[in-house]
Amino acid sequence: MSQVIEGQTSQVVQSPQYNELISRIKEAHLLGSTSAILGWDQEVMMPEQGLAHRIDQMAQIAQLHHQKSTDPKIGKLLDFCEANPELNQDPISDTAVNIREIRRDYTRAVCLPEELVIREARITSQAKHEWARARKEDDFSRFEPHLQNVVDLNIEKAKCFGYAETGEPWDALAEGFQAGCTAKYVEGVFVPLREQLVAFLKEIKNAPKAPTNDFNKIKLPVDQQEAFVRDVATQIGFNFDAGRLDSSVHPFCSGTHPGDVRLTTRFHEDNVNDALGSTMHESGHGIYEQGLPAGSAIGTPMGTSVSLSVHESQSRLWENQVGRSNAFWDWCHPKLNDHFGDACNHLTKEQIVGGANIVSPSLVRVEADEATYNLHIMIRFDIERDLMSGKITAKDVSAIWNEKYKTYLGVDVPSDSLGCLQDIHWSMGAIGYFPTYTLGTLYAAQYFDAAKEAIPDLDQQIANGEFANLKTWLNENIHQQGNRYNTQDLCEKVTGKPLSAQPMMDYLEAKIRPLYGI
Amino acid sequence: MSQVIEGQTSQVVQSPQYNELISRIKEAHLLGSTSAILGWDQEVMMPEQGLAHRIDQMAQIAQLHHQKSTDPKIGKLLDFCEANPELNQDPISDTAVNIREIRRDYTRAVCLPEELVIREARITSQAKHEWARARKEDDFSRFEPHLQNVVDLNIEKAKCFGYAETGEPWDALAEGFQAGCTAKYVEGVFVPLREQLVAFLKEIKNAPKAPTNDFNKIKLPVDQQEAFVRDVATQIGFNFDAGRLDSSVHPFCSGTHPGDVRLTTRFHEDNVNDALGSTMHESGHGIYEQGLPAGSAIGTPMGTSVSLSVHESQSRLWENQVGRSNAFWDWCHPKLNDHFGDACNHLTKEQIVGGANIVSPSLVRVEADEATYNLHIMIRFDIERDLMSGKITAKDVSAIWNEKYKTYLGVDVPSDSLGCLQDIHWSMGAIGYFPTYTLGTLYAAQYFDAAKEAIPDLDQQIANGEFANLKTWLNENIHQQGNRYNTQDLCEKVTGKPLSAQPMMDYLEAKIRPLYGI
Repeated sequence: MSQVIEGQTSQVVQSPQYNELISRIKEAHLLGSTSAILGWDQEVMMPEQGLAHRIDQMAQIAQLHHQKSTDPKIGKLLDFCEANPELNQDPISDTAVNIREIRRDYTRAVCLPEELVIREARITSQAKHEWARARKEDDFSRFEPHLQNVVDLNIEKAKCFGYAETGEPWDALAEGFQAGCTAKYVEGVFVPLREQLVAFLKEIKNAPKAPTNDFNKIKLPVDQQEAFVRDVATQIGFNFDAGRLDSSVHPFCSGTHPGDVRLTTRFHEDNVNDALGSTMHESGHGIYEQGLPAGSAIGTPMGTSVSLSVHESQSRLWENQVGRSNAFWDWCHPKLNDHFGDACNHLTKEQIVGGANIVSPSLVRVEADEATYNLHIMIRFDIERDLMSGKITAKDVSAIWNEKYKTYLGVDVPSDSLGCLQDIHWSMGAIGYFPTYTLGTLYAAQYFDAAKEAIPDLDQQIANGEFANLKTWLNENIHQQGNRYNTQDLCEKVTGKPLSAQPMMDYLEAKIRPLYGI
Repeated sequence: MSQVIEGQTSQVVQSPQYNELISRIKEAHLLGSTSAILGWDQEVMMPEQGLAHRIDQMAQIAQLHHQKSTDPKIGKLLDFCEANPELNQDPISDTAVNIREIRRDYTRAVCLPEELVIREARITSQAKHEWARARKEDDFSRFEPHLQNVVDLNIEKAKCFGYAETGEPWDALAEGFQAGCTAKYVEGVFVPLREQLVAFLKEIKNAPKAPTNDFNKIKLPVDQQEAFVRDVATQIGFNFDAGRLDSSVHPFCSGTHPGDVRLTTRFHEDNVNDALGSTMHESGHGIYEQGLPAGSAIGTPMGTSVSLSVHESQSRLWENQVGRSNAFWDWCHPKLNDHFGDACNHLTKEQIVGGANIVSPSLVRVEADEATYNLHIMIRFDIERDLMSGKITAKDVSAIWNEKYKTYLGVDVPSDSLGCLQDIHWSMGAIGYFPTYTLGTLYAAQYFDAAKEAIPDLDQQIANGEFANLKTWLNENIHQQGNRYNTQDLCEKVTGKPLSAQPMMDYLEAKIRPLYGI
């Protein structure tokens, strides 16, 4: 199997119409990237009283962005470009890919009236703010009306996009995060995966031994943790000349183009694993964004990530396949001394790896282990699907959430802050988004297997702190491909097979079984 | 003399045309405030490689802003509103002020072609970046071509605005920072002031004694300095729920509206006076921005500061009249213990006040004492005036700068970093700006005298750490007036007299003479 994918050096076709199309799309993208900076600023920097004005700014930019994205001239230019055989001769050439994806985006954008787009910016800016306060104050009732606003808005959006083919309003939204992603498809992946995971968890529950997390028992000063995670992020390949790392309530990655990619993480004195895991996770997203085609590709589909599943495959790969591995800790264990003095000297490498791989049903998704993580996602998928179909409303969410955590994970939710208020996504208007986390988790395992095949001594390289070959492999095979292939085709191209949950289950069992003696 | 100015509760006149005018102006302002956030981000947050894309973003927003600001519909609405006697009955009512100032802005904006505005955004974003690098590397040759670009652009702008009346291209630019400010007017203030200052400096040079700056001899950790200056900023009235304080190469204040005002300062271990002075200075700007009329006034002239001179009067007042006073240190001296432990215990209050008021010709404007400060400004005014008239070009700046520092201040400039590269302003395209610093310094003294008259025990209040009455007086008399009066009229309204250098000289001599025994 060839790891470097063909089609990268497609010849440049001269077409004034194509050039104008690209130039218009770039203008729209530029407004999108301004909106991204405003959004990042709102999360990370903006003072409390800046909100009302920020909502006005976001709404204005959303309006201008929509106007530029839906200009009928784009439709005419697309008609022209699609009819030009030269531009489309090679369907995976940059030109053909850009035309195909601009059409996809344009078709969706024109479904939405301008008024709705402005309203969306207002509702979600406000809801994000209310969510953060509600979470802080552990008061779901504060967030509930805003969640319902978001749901109503998304139902309206789904109607605009249409979903006659599948009858599932959820599908119309998921399409925005990954082309072709439907609830039926997700269900087809989730149902058997859940069975496998539940069986595996049963075995673990009855296991003769279990690791303990002694690393998190040590209080480590936040400034030392920060220096530590920066060091790791730098070493694995995140470029701080083209990015930042800050802290925020909910870790995220915001990228406008490969030269400016912003990560956030969070710190708790007694949970260095959270800071490290979040940082490696977000660095994985960041390395993808920094590795996308740059220069003239910026602002075009070829310069844009293919889907959220593939994005999540990159974050999960660095967080889990790399960050929770024996090999990684061969390199990282001695570094603890540099950053934390002798605070961790009593911990063996084996104890840290064990602690990073404890399987234990818990309340918080982003802190969940790899075996239970996907159950958290399934709960969210169930709930948002029912919200979208109207089966339930925002006021039901807290009770249903808690009930499902009992059923799926066997845990009691003590408060909404640790329950249905834990994640930012719905407040941002992102419904149809969560399942890409599980799909990405599966892709991560499958891509990592392919990387190991291509780099036979990858484990040893990681143990030496050499991450460059892995990063280059990801750059060439995934990041530099932009939108050349869709999510499914990219997987087949790179791994030789369609997506399967088996690589993830194999990887997980191989790692977890010895730790639990099962 | 009444300290609360009439005209604040002008009745609301209903006019659909006026409402539409205001709504259009607010849209333009909203783009301006987005540009301000992008600009702040570029200075304080953006990673190195974000520049090229940021330039594109700034240019796009500048273009959209220009389009909205010069829409012929605004001209028509203005014609209509100006012809409506009801709206203009009271010339200092909110409606009349808004109409007057929108006309002024519109008249200027339509002078500039869109292409020039876009080019300006590109040239200045790039020049700011090159300036920061050139300064860091002490390499004027790196900045020189960008400075010339800025000068050429400004000459072009001056031609667009026109300057037939005075024959001074500089005037056309200064008008943008303060209505009615001409080189002739500035010269009329500067020439006698220079004579007074030079004579005073001569006396100081031959004085029998001089204070020493022992405060700056102590190395104080940056994190402690930061907590200290935040404490002071909070106490004097800067509202951190509606603002931020960060650090940057060049301290500045960036405000988009009263709910989001951002200050920067800078820290050196062995120069706590710089951090404190910069913070109080920028807090003064920030308190003005936070004190402007809010709510429906945001984005209108009534919600905007009147001129840079008045702005600077607010920053200089807090930095100097308050921050370098005996009374201030009565309150602040005991605080040193809270922030720096016993590191400053050996310093008396008198030593600190003395150190803060040392008069000594020096190289760096923002660290200059109050007696020599204005000579720094005069040098910049001379140079930018000659750049604008074409007498000199960018390549002459370094040599002329150094020569003038010798003549005006008697100091040798050892490097361009400490010389003509020290200030950000020209790189931002701001020519015609510097003289407002001296005008503001004079206004500060005159306003402070008026405040003392209105609050007879102000000194005692400051000594108690009670700054609220002073802030309220500034809020009511200056900040809340927005653009009701022009710079000159506001001064007469509030102080009962036109601007004069005498209050500043009186204040300075009263403070400095005892310290030097002259």
